[in-house]
Amino acid sequence: MKIAVLTFDGFNELDSFIVAGILNRMNSRGWKAYITCPSKAVTSMNGVTIEAEQPLTFASGADAVIIGSGIKTREIAQDSGLLARLQLDPARQLIGAQCSGTLLMSKLGLLGDLPACTDLTTKPWVIEAGVKVLDQPFHASGNIATAGGCLASQYLAAWILLRAGTREDAEAALHYVAPVGQKEEYVARAIDSVIRYIPDPIATPAA
Amino acid sequence: MKIAVLTFDGFNELDSFIVAGILNRMNSRGWKAYITCPSKAVTSMNGVTIEAEQPLTFASGADAVIIGSGIKTREIAQDSGLLARLQLDPARQLIGAQCSGTLLMSKLGLLGDLPACTDLTTKPWVIEAGVKVLDQPFHASGNIATAGGCLASQYLAAWILLRAGTREDAEAALHYVAPVGQKEEYVARAIDSVIRYIPDPIATPAA
Repeated sequence: MKIAVLTFDGFNELDSFIVAGILNRMNSRGWKAYITCPSKAVTSMNGVTIEAEQPLTFASGADAVIIGSGIKTREIAQDSGLLARLQLDPARQLIGAQCSGTLLMSKLGLLGDLPACTDLTTKPWVIEAGVKVLDQPFHASGNIATAGGCLASQYLAAWILLRAGTREDAEAALHYVAPVGQKEEYVARAIDSVIRYIPDPIATPAA
Repeated sequence: MKIAVLTFDGFNELDSFIVAGILNRMNSRGWKAYITCPSKAVTSMNGVTIEAEQPLTFASGADAVIIGSGIKTREIAQDSGLLARLQLDPARQLIGAQCSGTLLMSKLGLLGDLPACTDLTTKPWVIEAGVKVLDQPFHASGNIATAGGCLASQYLAAWILLRAGTREDAEAALHYVAPVGQKEEYVARAIDSVIRYIPDPIATPAA
């Protein structure tokens, strides 16, 4: 699995790095989540400059794409040149949006009539774009998923792990990042937040 | 509040960015958490290169210091030249260690006889260093705190917010990052994990 975590100037660090970090727990199995940017370097909402691991064009060929979030998303949503570089296809890719990434997902025409999750700050803009916003951390339909609230990015990771890996893979990766002494509680809540959106065969609890 | 988030080569992205991101919610109040590194740039355990916001010497003058975690901590713990550049003082600084950062905290002589939290991978090395490791996500005594498990880094942030800010500050920052629809649950668990380690006056529930 090659995964693009779309990360723009003004990005929210939690929204890009939590999902990437959890998915990279599968690196021994050939998975890799790449910080994917429209320029060679981007600077976060709190002033941290990071180097892109992949250019934006990488996303078109990735197996999964996470659209990250940040404080400049409304500007990016108006940048038709940048959006045109994102040729995403839910017929062959798993595509998830985190917080304000949901606004970009809508502008890219990927949401259709689906309801969606986003953060409380972005919510009015997503509603303005004609999307029904849900009061829950995660929603998916087919190959399209959305999450709201920085720490809900763990649920986007869980969704990709459950869709493209096994339930054991998802539980192991979530267990690793969860707080010591609260691991079972964290894993159970993450699986519970996502499992209803997974097609039947893998939804069966692990033996 | 000037806060140094110590971030070394091989760092775990979640361990540095979750705590920094939550603390930077207080930027309108003059707080700033800085990614603080021994070199101009460091590369994470998953290959992401980031620029330092502050040099290692910044930590000595910071109001609070978080010792981050990563896959090279055992090497760093042997690097007496690097450790000597870290002049930390719990008499005037709040000092927290995240996951393998607890090993560095021990090597720096900051733990004394205190029990500590760390992640499951680092646990044997911390025990080898003579520290009693707790099966819980967070522990603090005086100005020294430790946390275990990537997502427990939110508890280090909560501890600094409760110690140097107000309970309302802590709750607001935690509420912002929590998943939509699960915010009350997340805030309550974070406060509950930390509040017993906060000296009395601020431990009183907010009116």
